Amino acid sequence: MTQTAFDAVGIGNAIVDVLAHGDEAFLQRHGLVKGTMALVDATEAETIYAGMGPAVEVSGGSAANTMAGLASLGGSAAYIGKVRDDQLGQVFSHDIRATGVHFDTPRAQDGEGTARCLIVVTPDAQRTMQTFLGACIDLGPADIDANLVRSAQVTYLEGYLYDPPHAKEAFVKAAEIAHAAGRKVALSLSDPFCVDRHRDAFLDLVAGHIDILFANETELASLYQVEEFDEGLQRVRADCDVACLTRSEKGSLIVAGDEVHVIDAEPVAQVVDTTGAGDLYASGFLYGYTHGLGLAVAGRIAAIAAGEVISHMGARPERPLQALVKERLG
Amino acid sequence: MTQTAFDAVGIGNAIVDVLAHGDEAFLQRHGLVKGTMALVDATEAETIYAGMGPAVEVSGGSAANTMAGLASLGGSAAYIGKVRDDQLGQVFSHDIRATGVHFDTPRAQDGEGTARCLIVVTPDAQRTMQTFLGACIDLGPADIDANLVRSAQVTYLEGYLYDPPHAKEAFVKAAEIAHAAGRKVALSLSDPFCVDRHRDAFLDLVAGHIDILFANETELASLYQVEEFDEGLQRVRADCDVACLTRSEKGSLIVAGDEVHVIDAEPVAQVVDTTGAGDLYASGFLYGYTHGLGLAVAGRIAAIAAGEVISHMGARPERPLQALVKERLG
Repeated sequence: MTQTAFDAVGIGNAIVDVLAHGDEAFLQRHGLVKGTMALVDATEAETIYAGMGPAVEVSGGSAANTMAGLASLGGSAAYIGKVRDDQLGQVFSHDIRATGVHFDTPRAQDGEGTARCLIVVTPDAQRTMQTFLGACIDLGPADIDANLVRSAQVTYLEGYLYDPPHAKEAFVKAAEIAHAAGRKVALSLSDPFCVDRHRDAFLDLVAGHIDILFANETELASLYQVEEFDEGLQRVRADCDVACLTRSEKGSLIVAGDEVHVIDAEPVAQVVDTTGAGDLYASGFLYGYTHGLGLAVAGRIAAIAAGEVISHMGARPERPLQALVKERLG
Repeated sequence: MTQTAFDAVGIGNAIVDVLAHGDEAFLQRHGLVKGTMALVDATEAETIYAGMGPAVEVSGGSAANTMAGLASLGGSAAYIGKVRDDQLGQVFSHDIRATGVHFDTPRAQDGEGTARCLIVVTPDAQRTMQTFLGACIDLGPADIDANLVRSAQVTYLEGYLYDPPHAKEAFVKAAEIAHAAGRKVALSLSDPFCVDRHRDAFLDLVAGHIDILFANETELASLYQVEEFDEGLQRVRADCDVACLTRSEKGSLIVAGDEVHVIDAEPVAQVVDTTGAGDLYASGFLYGYTHGLGLAVAGRIAAIAAGEVISHMGARPERPLQALVKERLG
């Protein structure tokens, strides 16, 4: 492999999170399914937002969170995603650059505003997300900077990217450029309902384009339409070089051919908000993987990064992760 | 006094706070004076923001925070302030209404965007604020709803309102309406530099229009240009019916003619961010005062509300204050 400028480049929906505490009754009243992400149009977003309590705005977006986490770990990261030239677009751009992530996707000059994700955090620390895609629907193949993709060891794609209309073309284009340059392509399945919406496309993708897959157990079950975790495990082993399978407090499993590692979840004093747990797990794994630390150590770093992000509100690390990992792993 | 619809109506600069952690070197590099508020233009705001780390956006504004706190205590509150019809204006409007505060000041349809306050929180939990006034400069006498002012026991004004050009006319108009209706008028001095900018106007105002004054010791010293806290105390006693003088961890003093109360600061496990301490102190006092609980109890509630807001990032309460006060006072 030739010298690379970036450990990873993430491609995803560029979103500002709007987080508020809420109760189960709120979810029921609005017909929201706890722990999942649903797409809403501008009108639905308005209705749900009007019912939400006082909120906090923090930059988010699954792959963007992963790249921010990778940078916080001391890795070099880049990001491709579409915002508009509005206030929330400025917020998103500022925050991702302030974490040290390279980001220069041209902003949309017209059309819908920057995407928002309305996140209700229930007292059990679960997050329920309603996404208004806004300007993300404008992301397309023209936004893929081929040199940037070639310059990264791993091109990391979020499954949510299959929701907007043209992003999947961008996605496949990026994967082909990456592979032609001898790089790896990773995918996070994002959400069980997202997998449901795009199962056939994801099955083709996983079998044909993906080297590293990130999935939690419900996403894995949805992808292969199986009941048992173990069944999904056997299926995914045949499809991908590396699969990172997360199971919340049960920890995670990393399988790569005959190699299997069981990683315990990192102990956390108090789980405050699970938003970003999967995203930061991916940050940690990608850091370990691209720095040649081996799958077991990569898994430990993944668990530490996920543990940090669930101990506070919001999906980006609050403590510099590099120092935290050093403290935990020595 | 006839029946009132609101305990208080606050008038202030409607601002969205942009909070990030930062170090002393950052303050020095940008020539910022720790613990104070400075006004910046759009270009300066851009420069400082570009240098700030990843941030969180939370609705703020001094008097708005005070009204949000009053509502959280179980009081009835209204707010007058100017935002633009942009994304941050929507955020501000949503959040203040979500706390239960009545807010219907017409949004500006053109001109500068909604105001932002760039807040750097240093490791010692002090906040240093740079305010871009934006749409706040459009607040004027036409925005004062006379019926709303008459319907509130207390009209509460923030000193910062003397910075935009027409707000002071709005301020005096509101005070005159309130007094003509037999209501009380309160003022918070906001910031020592703000007092410096408008000392003569504030001296006239305090002597002629203000029933209840909120000031911390540096603001009090700046107003009367005295060195000693005790000197300021003697001066303010002659000027206002009630003066609430705050001294951070030394607690506060409430003087009303011959009545004097010394209130200890509420013990706090960890001071995280002092943003909003004075604002929430005023919430607590106004709640006690407008509910006839006496000055000493009002002071205790003030200390409890201030203690809550300094225990986390941001200037609005995260826990419902009514329950917290009940727990502490029984």
